Amino acid sequence: MKIAILGYGVVGSGAYEILNKNGYKVKKVLDIRPHDELGNVLTANYDDILNDSEIGVVAEAIGGLEPAHTFVVKALKAGKHVVSSNKHLICEYFDELHTLANENGVTLRFTSSVGGGIPWLYNLKRTAKCDEITKIMGIMNGTTNFILDAMITDKRDFDEVLNEAQALGYAEANPSADIDGLDVARKTAISSSLSFDTIVEEKEVSTFSLRNITKSDIEYIKERFNKTVRYMGFGIKNDDGTISSFVEPVLLPSSALEASVNKNFNMISLFGESVGRLSFYGQGAGKYPTGHALASDVADIVDGCRESAVRTKKYTVDNEKCERKYYIRANTLPASDLIDSYECVDSSYYIITNKMKVSAMHSLAKSILESDPRAFFAGVED
Amino acid sequence: MKIAILGYGVVGSGAYEILNKNGYKVKKVLDIRPHDELGNVLTANYDDILNDSEIGVVAEAIGGLEPAHTFVVKALKAGKHVVSSNKHLICEYFDELHTLANENGVTLRFTSSVGGGIPWLYNLKRTAKCDEITKIMGIMNGTTNFILDAMITDKRDFDEVLNEAQALGYAEANPSADIDGLDVARKTAISSSLSFDTIVEEKEVSTFSLRNITKSDIEYIKERFNKTVRYMGFGIKNDDGTISSFVEPVLLPSSALEASVNKNFNMISLFGESVGRLSFYGQGAGKYPTGHALASDVADIVDGCRESAVRTKKYTVDNEKCERKYYIRANTLPASDLIDSYECVDSSYYIITNKMKVSAMHSLAKSILESDPRAFFAGVED
Repeated sequence: MKIAILGYGVVGSGAYEILNKNGYKVKKVLDIRPHDELGNVLTANYDDILNDSEIGVVAEAIGGLEPAHTFVVKALKAGKHVVSSNKHLICEYFDELHTLANENGVTLRFTSSVGGGIPWLYNLKRTAKCDEITKIMGIMNGTTNFILDAMITDKRDFDEVLNEAQALGYAEANPSADIDGLDVARKTAISSSLSFDTIVEEKEVSTFSLRNITKSDIEYIKERFNKTVRYMGFGIKNDDGTISSFVEPVLLPSSALEASVNKNFNMISLFGESVGRLSFYGQGAGKYPTGHALASDVADIVDGCRESAVRTKKYTVDNEKCERKYYIRANTLPASDLIDSYECVDSSYYIITNKMKVSAMHSLAKSILESDPRAFFAGVED
Repeated sequence: MKIAILGYGVVGSGAYEILNKNGYKVKKVLDIRPHDELGNVLTANYDDILNDSEIGVVAEAIGGLEPAHTFVVKALKAGKHVVSSNKHLICEYFDELHTLANENGVTLRFTSSVGGGIPWLYNLKRTAKCDEITKIMGIMNGTTNFILDAMITDKRDFDEVLNEAQALGYAEANPSADIDGLDVARKTAISSSLSFDTIVEEKEVSTFSLRNITKSDIEYIKERFNKTVRYMGFGIKNDDGTISSFVEPVLLPSSALEASVNKNFNMISLFGESVGRLSFYGQGAGKYPTGHALASDVADIVDGCRESAVRTKKYTVDNEKCERKYYIRANTLPASDLIDSYECVDSSYYIITNKMKVSAMHSLAKSILESDPRAFFAGVED
């Protein structure tokens, strides 16, 4: 079986090098830019790939929705297996792409779309074949972990570290997708969908921004509770058969494994009824790590591994059915029946709430932010 | 394809339950003890399995060398795929079993033989398809991690915690295989063999015992160096094309991920040229975690995944080619040219050596132990 790669950017070129070096020959690369080193492997015409019956697997590393979506749909309809590193595409068209893969009897893999080089999604699906997943959670964004780690280790403030992350190329010029949670929300939606055999949409994942965290928050949380902060996505199966899915900064015990995940590394965990907790740690981004994850999915397919794409849509998302305590730092107090404890320091209230519904807290946060746009919110993990 | 399980002990019965619950029906279970709940699934005659052409995969969970070895060899020769949770068997007959699997065109899997529920060996082999592994290391024994964690957290001494571990069923009545390193040496040998496409034998893995560690060692290491201790196996590819493989207590920075691996959990890591560091964390033992790992290997095979068992034996083991610093606590000093620094406290010397060859240090340790049977040795990880 021959291989085609769509897009010769950072991830596509990394996967190309890795596959060829390890005996998996790439027959065609689609890119509209010139790449002399590719010789006649390069094409700018997708039909050269679609109509090549030797090509059995198409690895999409273009990113974004179009033309990636059109190309992937055509590949699936042509009976070619598809691998993708594109979280935006997978999240937006999860149902359509799985249905098409199923109808055409081909395998759809997208390990490299979440967690960079970490074989997370692949292992999540493999584990779930023989287990009931009850919860997933993880540090899935290297930029925000780099920022938090630098703030905590060097006692620096958010904006200063963000500027450094941008200078180092870890953060985009417009950092919103990272620091406001869209990137983690997509990764959480995809992970939750696979975990619970359902379809979680990006907009169903309630999301707090990390943007308002301050040096004072970190110091207070450390001194008062001996806890640290990480920015994480969660998918939880509730007792009533619904699932909850959200992205929040979280207060973690200093002894938690995630508290030792430093720099731009990622760690994602699953909890299975039989297997217990399994955690996966590695580089969440980068040409060769993410290229390796894309290449490994391709290699599995070339080596004959096939996977079903059948979905049963068992669960609905309901963030009313999950409760936890929250940390709030704001310039006003919420209703007293919500408060477990608070202190006032330098005109700011540092509050721990009673257990609250995730949905109620995310609504409350929106209303607090209207009068106090610098307020900060975080979940509390035991 | 139908499934047979050999041995209905802790792991075999766990895998049986998990497979049946998840739609992978087990046709036969071999055990010489009565198990009424199994009805006519149970047999005491291996020929019932061997001669059943519907049974395509045999999962061995008997443990020990015989009759497991004879049964597995017969299954491979009969063209049946084999899955095993038996580290002793895999380590002892690594070459023979891989050769037989290869000759008979069947898949040989043994994920559950190392790391309990952690899909470590499976992911190690999968990662290595598209990468060059340069190092593996890990906490692979839950008993010794439980002992170290309790000694560190509760400032207790070795014998007291070992007794508790025995009472809790975490440690055997004869704990030597755990605390003297044989268990980790076998797991390190198997992991190194897969990592470096070679055959590392149990006896080639140089091993320090954990037995002599004291409360004083742990306090000194924490106060003097801000480090902690874990008991780990290592496989390292040297620059000259040899590999080194050893088991040692190690001094780790308190910020190391392994320093947060508590209780009887395991964490095993690989370093790949492309993918960087990947770490896998979970339950290193137990009926359902290990049963899940065995069941997952079986499920992969039933679902059509096939793996090559071809070995190329590229590397030889040479512990002269790897150097590191060591911590020694003894009642005499070694030759002064070996010493980087030392202190004498309460008639004991606490020594950090210069960088030494692993083989030289393991020889030195043997000679020191002849005159000071309570001396303790540990590698120093940066």
